[in-house]
Amino acid sequence: MQAEVTRFPLPDPGDVSGLKSAIDHREIDPLSIKAVIGKTHGNGLVNDYTRGYLAQSLAYLIAGATGETPEAVRARIPFIFSGGVEGLLSPHYTVFTASDGDGAAGPALAIGVAFTPDLRPEDIGRERQMALTAAAVADAMRSARIESPSDVDFVQVKGPAFTLADIAASTSRGGKVLTDNPAKLMGFGRAGSALGVARALGEAVTAEEDVLRDFAKFSSVASCSAGVEIRCNEVVVLGTSRSWSGPLGIAHAPLADALDVSGVHTALAALGMTANPQLGARDAARIRAAFVKCEASRDGLVRGKPHTMLNDGDIDQQRHIRAAVGAIVASVLGDTALFVSGGAEHQGPDGGGLVAIIAERT
Amino acid sequence: MQAEVTRFPLPDPGDVSGLKSAIDHREIDPLSIKAVIGKTHGNGLVNDYTRGYLAQSLAYLIAGATGETPEAVRARIPFIFSGGVEGLLSPHYTVFTASDGDGAAGPALAIGVAFTPDLRPEDIGRERQMALTAAAVADAMRSARIESPSDVDFVQVKGPAFTLADIAASTSRGGKVLTDNPAKLMGFGRAGSALGVARALGEAVTAEEDVLRDFAKFSSVASCSAGVEIRCNEVVVLGTSRSWSGPLGIAHAPLADALDVSGVHTALAALGMTANPQLGARDAARIRAAFVKCEASRDGLVRGKPHTMLNDGDIDQQRHIRAAVGAIVASVLGDTALFVSGGAEHQGPDGGGLVAIIAERT
Amino acid sequence: MQAEVTRFPLPDPGDVSGLKSAIDHREIDPLSIKAVIGKTHGNGLVNDYTRGYLAQSLAYLIAGATGETPEAVRARIPFIFSGGVEGLLSPHYTVFTASDGDGAAGPALAIGVAFTPDLRPEDIGRERQMALTAAAVADAMRSARIESPSDVDFVQVKGPAFTLADIAASTSRGGKVLTDNPAKLMGFGRAGSALGVARALGEAVTAEEDVLRDFAKFSSVASCSAGVEIRCNEVVVLGTSRSWSGPLGIAHAPLADALDVSGVHTALAALGMTANPQLGARDAARIRAAFVKCEASRDGLVRGKPHTMLNDGDIDQQRHIRAAVGAIVASVLGDTALFVSGGAEHQGPDGGGLVAIIAERT
Amino acid sequence: MQAEVTRFPLPDPGDVSGLKSAIDHREIDPLSIKAVIGKTHGNGLVNDYTRGYLAQSLAYLIAGATGETPEAVRARIPFIFSGGVEGLLSPHYTVFTASDGDGAAGPALAIGVAFTPDLRPEDIGRERQMALTAAAVADAMRSARIESPSDVDFVQVKGPAFTLADIAASTSRGGKVLTDNPAKLMGFGRAGSALGVARALGEAVTAEEDVLRDFAKFSSVASCSAGVEIRCNEVVVLGTSRSWSGPLGIAHAPLADALDVSGVHTALAALGMTANPQLGARDAARIRAAFVKCEASRDGLVRGKPHTMLNDGDIDQQRHIRAAVGAIVASVLGDTALFVSGGAEHQGPDGGGLVAIIAERT
Repeated sequence: MQAEVTRFPLPDPGDVSGLKSAIDHREIDPLSIKAVIGKTHGNGLVNDYTRGYLAQSLAYLIAGATGETPEAVRARIPFIFSGGVEGLLSPHYTVFTASDGDGAAGPALAIGVAFTPDLRPEDIGRERQMALTAAAVADAMRSARIESPSDVDFVQVKGPAFTLADIAASTSRGGKVLTDNPAKLMGFGRAGSALGVARALGEAVTAEEDVLRDFAKFSSVASCSAGVEIRCNEVVVLGTSRSWSGPLGIAHAPLADALDVSGVHTALAALGMTANPQLGARDAARIRAAFVKCEASRDGLVRGKPHTMLNDGDIDQQRHIRAAVGAIVASVLGDTALFVSGGAEHQGPDGGGLVAIIAERT
Repeated sequence: MQAEVTRFPLPDPGDVSGLKSAIDHREIDPLSIKAVIGKTHGNGLVNDYTRGYLAQSLAYLIAGATGETPEAVRARIPFIFSGGVEGLLSPHYTVFTASDGDGAAGPALAIGVAFTPDLRPEDIGRERQMALTAAAVADAMRSARIESPSDVDFVQVKGPAFTLADIAASTSRGGKVLTDNPAKLMGFGRAGSALGVARALGEAVTAEEDVLRDFAKFSSVASCSAGVEIRCNEVVVLGTSRSWSGPLGIAHAPLADALDVSGVHTALAALGMTANPQLGARDAARIRAAFVKCEASRDGLVRGKPHTMLNDGDIDQQRHIRAAVGAIVASVLGDTALFVSGGAEHQGPDGGGLVAIIAERT
Repeated sequence: MQAEVTRFPLPDPGDVSGLKSAIDHREIDPLSIKAVIGKTHGNGLVNDYTRGYLAQSLAYLIAGATGETPEAVRARIPFIFSGGVEGLLSPHYTVFTASDGDGAAGPALAIGVAFTPDLRPEDIGRERQMALTAAAVADAMRSARIESPSDVDFVQVKGPAFTLADIAASTSRGGKVLTDNPAKLMGFGRAGSALGVARALGEAVTAEEDVLRDFAKFSSVASCSAGVEIRCNEVVVLGTSRSWSGPLGIAHAPLADALDVSGVHTALAALGMTANPQLGARDAARIRAAFVKCEASRDGLVRGKPHTMLNDGDIDQQRHIRAAVGAIVASVLGDTALFVSGGAEHQGPDGGGLVAIIAERT
Repeated sequence: MQAEVTRFPLPDPGDVSGLKSAIDHREIDPLSIKAVIGKTHGNGLVNDYTRGYLAQSLAYLIAGATGETPEAVRARIPFIFSGGVEGLLSPHYTVFTASDGDGAAGPALAIGVAFTPDLRPEDIGRERQMALTAAAVADAMRSARIESPSDVDFVQVKGPAFTLADIAASTSRGGKVLTDNPAKLMGFGRAGSALGVARALGEAVTAEEDVLRDFAKFSSVASCSAGVEIRCNEVVVLGTSRSWSGPLGIAHAPLADALDVSGVHTALAALGMTANPQLGARDAARIRAAFVKCEASRDGLVRGKPHTMLNDGDIDQQRHIRAAVGAIVASVLGDTALFVSGGAEHQGPDGGGLVAIIAERT
C-alpha cells in the first residue's frame, strides 16, 4: 500500500471545493480516502458547530462522488476536526488516502483507522471508553500492518462531547456521568481516550482512577479531542510499516513544556531536516502535515513565570495555548496550516505535549 | 549616568509589592525612577482598566516613598502599560532608573522621557498629535544625550484612548473626530504617534494623509499604544549613548512578518548572544527586558495562507496576534515576561513589527 | 391561500429532525414551504457558520423529500437565519407554508418572497443594493397579493456578508468597497437593505448618501441581517391580505428605545391580547412567532444613563443588545423562542427597533 | 438613625469624582458612610480587576477626606462590587450612609455591616465560611437594630475569590480545597455564604454537605458574590427597623425563574408603586437602588425551552444571565443603574433569584 497526504485550504466549513476539484480532476479517488483530519473556524469548545458542518459537507461531497449514502461515508471514514484557528493558524483539512503501492521499498508511512461502538455520557472518562479505545487502536494498527507499538508515531482520537441537555437526559435515565459540566466532560473524554491509547501501546498500565489524576501516566503519541458531532471514538493511527511504500515518512517528538521548541527540531531531524532557525523553502515544501498537542500547565507556571490562561473568563485556556504553541511550531516550519489541539491531558508529558510531522523523504 | 532595568512580576494590577520591597530594601531609589513599562491582565482594548489600576497603584506607592503627590509622580514618570497577557505571556512591569554612573566606559543603554501636552479626541491621528509626538521624541533624545537617530533602538509612546462618551462630548463641542468608533480611534492614535516618531528620527516625511494609508512609511523603532487612563502622549526613548555607562546594552531588529523568528536572532546577535534554537540558561539570565510589536496582516495572509484574525467576532485581532508572536519570541528567549503590543500600524514593516532587547553585555 | 407558521426547536444547527418528522408525518408538505426564518447558535457576526450549516441541513432535507436538488431548494426558499441566542433566547427555526385556503373569510396573514440578483462587496450599502432590494420587496408584495404598504407588518431581508478575503479579492479587481472591515461592511449592508425597504414602502426618499448617516430615515417594518452563507438579498414580506384566509394574524409596533416594553404590549393589543405583566398560558399558546430588531444606541445612553456596549472589546455590541431586548420581549410573552436580531440601522427609530408578532386570532 | 442611599455614575473604575464632589460640597459626610455597593465594568469573573480598582479609588478618596489610612477605611466600610454591566446595565456605585435621625417616625430602612475573619481557599464552601457568615449576619442585624429575620430584606455578602496561584499555594501547605478550578471555587464561595445567611435567618438548617447539592435550601434575601480583591466575607444587611427613621423603605420578592417579571411588580407593590407596564417618571424618581440576583437554570431550560448559556465557550453563563434578567428588571423600573449579580446558588429559588428595591416612600 502507499499513503498519500494532501492538505486543502478551508475558506469556510461548508466550502470543500478543494477536495471536490481534486476528485473531479481524478487526482484523488474518493474510494481511497481513509481519513480526514482538519482544523476548523469555531472555538473548539462545546458550542463549536464548524466541525459538524465540515463533516456534513464532506460526507455529501464524497457520497455524491462514490454513490454511497452520506451515512455510509461517515461510517467508513473518520472525520476528525479540531475547532480553533487562533493566532496564525490557517483553517484546512488533510485528506489521507491509501492506494496500491508502486512497489518501491518500504518502510513508509502507514495509516489505519477504527471506530468504537457508540459511547454514552456515562461512559466518558470511564473504563468502557478506555477499553474500547484501546481495542480500536489495536484494530487500527492491525489494519495498517504496523508491527510494533514503537512504529506508531501518532494516534488521533476523536470522541463524543455532550451538551447539557445530553447529560441531563443521561442522568434522568439513571446514568452516572462524571460531571454535569459539558466542558469538563470533554476533558474527561480526552483523558480517558488518551489512557486507552497508552494501554494499547503498552506505555502505561491504566485504570479508571488514573483519569485526570495520575498525569505521570500518558501516551507520547496520543492526540485526543471531542466534539458534539459524533457519538463514538474514531481512531486514526499513523506510523511506519514495511508493508507500505512511497515517499512519505513520519516522525514525532515530545514537547516538555509549552516553550520546548527543541521538540520540533527533534522531529524534523528524524526526517532529515534542519531548521536554522526556520526551515528553508525547499524543506518547507516537503512538509505534508504537522500535528501538535499542547496544554496550559496546570500549575499556572511556564518556566517559573505565571501564565494567566487558567484564570481567564473571557478566552478559554485552550484558545490561548493553541495560539501560542501553534505559532511556535509555525515559526520553525514556516507554515501555518497546522493541526494544533489543546487539552493534552495524558497526551505527552504533563504541561507539555507532542508534535508529529509527515514529510516527503529525500 | 547609568541605567538600571528591573522586571517585577505583577500578580494583580493592584499588587506592586515587588517594587515596594525593592524600595523598602533600598535596592531602588524611587527618585531615580525614569519610566515604568509593563504588561497587565486586561484585554488591551478600550475597556481595559488594568492599565489605569496599575498606574494608580504605582503612583500611590512612589508618592508614599518620596513625599511627592501621586499627581506629581504621574507628571514625572511615564507609566506605559499594555493590556493583554495572551497565551504564554506573564504579567510584569519593568522599572527603568537612572543614577550617577560608576565611571565605567560607555557607550551604554540611555533613557530619556518626555510628555506632550494633553490631546483631545479631534487631535488623534492628526497633525497635532504627530507634531507634538515628534517634538517629544526630540526632547527625550536630548535629555538622554543620545546623539543620533541611529543610536535609538526603541521608542515607546503611550497616548490617550477615548470612550464613546468622550468622543460624543468632543463632537458636541464641534470637534471633528476621525471616527466615532472608540477601538478604531485607538488605531488612528497609534498610527499618528508612530508617524510622529518616524518624523523625529528622519525615517520618513510624514503628513496627516499618510495615517493608516501609506504603510510604506513607518518607524523601525516605534512602539505605540493607547489607553483611556492618560490624556497626553508619554514618550520613552531607549538607545545607546557615550554619556551613559554600566553593563546594559540594547539592540533591535525588524520582524518582516509574524513568522519572522530570524528577527529575534538578529537582535540577540547584536548583543553577542546565540539561541540554538533557544537561549541557554546563562544567556537567558542576561536578558533584562524585551519589547515586541506585531500585528495581524491586513491582507489576511501569512506566507500566503489565510489567517482568520480579522474576521473573528469573539476574540479581537490584537489578542490573537499578541498570543502568537509573543509565544514565538518567548520560545527563542526562554522567557515569557515580555512586553508584546499589538496594533503595529506604521511600526515596523507592514504586516510585521519589531523586537528590541535589553541585556547585560558580557 | 392560507398561511401556516410552525416553530421547531433547533438542538444543533445540523439537527433538523423536527421538520423531518413533520414532513414524514405529512403535517408539512415540503413543496408548500415558502420561507424559513430562524435563530442559530453562533455569534451572529462575520465568523458565524451556524447559519450556513442550518441552511445546508434544510436544503438537503427538503431536497430529499421533494426530489429537487439542494441548489433548487435554496433558489426557491429563503433561509434567513440570525446567529446569536444570547441570554434566555432559544435556538429554533420557523417554517412558513402557504396552501390552498379553506375558504374562511380573510383578511389573514399573507407571505411573499423574492430574491435580488447576486451582490458583490462593492454593491453593499450602495444604490445597487438599495434599488434591487426595493424591487424585490415590491415583487414579494405582489406575489403575496398585499395591496398596500400599510398592510405590510414585517419585511425580513438577509443579504450577503463578506470576509476579508472576499473584500480583498473585490478590491484587487478594482471594486470600491465602502470599508475593508468585514463587520462594518455587514452594517452597511443592513443599512442599505433597510433603506431599500423604506423606499419600496414609501416610508422615506432614500439615496446612497443617507446610508449610516441620516438615521431619521428608516423603515418601521424592516429587519435586515447579513451572513457569509448567501450572495443575494433574500426578502420575506409578511403582512395582511384579503386574498388570504385562515386563523393567523400579524401586528407590529416600534420600540422607541431599548427599554420600550410598551411596544410589545401595543403589538399584542393589535392582536387582541393583554399581558399583565406577562401573557397568560392561554394567550401564550396563541403566539406562533415573534420578531424583534434592536440596537445599542449610538450615543451610548439609555434613558440618560451610559451603557458600555460600544466600548466592549470582549463581547460584541450586538450580542449584548440581543440578550437584553430579547429578554424584555420574552418576559412579556413568556416565550424565549424569539427571532431577535441586532444591528437595527435604519430599522425602526434610531436607538430603538421594532417588534412583530404572529398569533392565532381568537 | 436615618439611612440615606445615593447612587453615583461610574465612568471608569478609577473615577470616583461623583462621591468626591458630594463630599467636597458636604452633601455626604465621609465618616457616615456605612457601605458602598456597586457594579463595575469588568467580566465579574476571576480575572476582573475593576472591583479592586474601584475599591482602591474609594479607599484613597475617603481616607484623604477623613484622615484615616486607606487600610482603616477598608476595615470599616464594606466595598462590595459586582463586575459585569452586560446589555443595558449602567456602571454605578451606591453609597449607604447613616446619620442621626430627624425624629420622624419609623420604621424605616436600616443598615448594618459586619466582617468575618479572613478566609483561606480551604474554607470556601465549607462549614467555617458558613458559620462565620452566619455569625456576621447576626452581628450586622444587631448593629442595625433589626429585630426579626422577617424584617430583613436583603443581605449582600462579598467573599474572597482565589486565583490558581492562591489555590496552588494553599494545596502545597496541605489545605484541602474543594476544587482547583478558580471559577468553580467562586461558586462554592457564593453557595457557602448563602447557606450561612439562610442559617442566620432561620430559613434552613444547613450543613457543609448541602453546598451545591440541596438547592431546596436557600435564602430568599441573600445575594452573594466573590472577588480576588478581598480576603474575608463582608456582610451588609438591609431591612426595616423601628429604630430608624426617614423617608426610605425597602421591599423584596423572589424571582421564580428568569422570566418571572411578576416578582419585580410584587416588590414595587410592597412599596406602594405600580408599573403598567413600566414605572412612570414620578415613581421612577423615587427609586434609590435595586438589587437583583439571578442564574442560568441548571437544567438548561427556561419554561421548557432550551437556553444555551451553559454550553457557551465564548461568553460565560453569568454574563448572559445578567444581561437578560438585568434588562427585564430595567424594563419595569425604566432604570438601568441596577445591581445585578449572577451565580445565585442557594440565593432564591433554584433557577430563579430575587429582587430588592429601595425607594422613597410616599
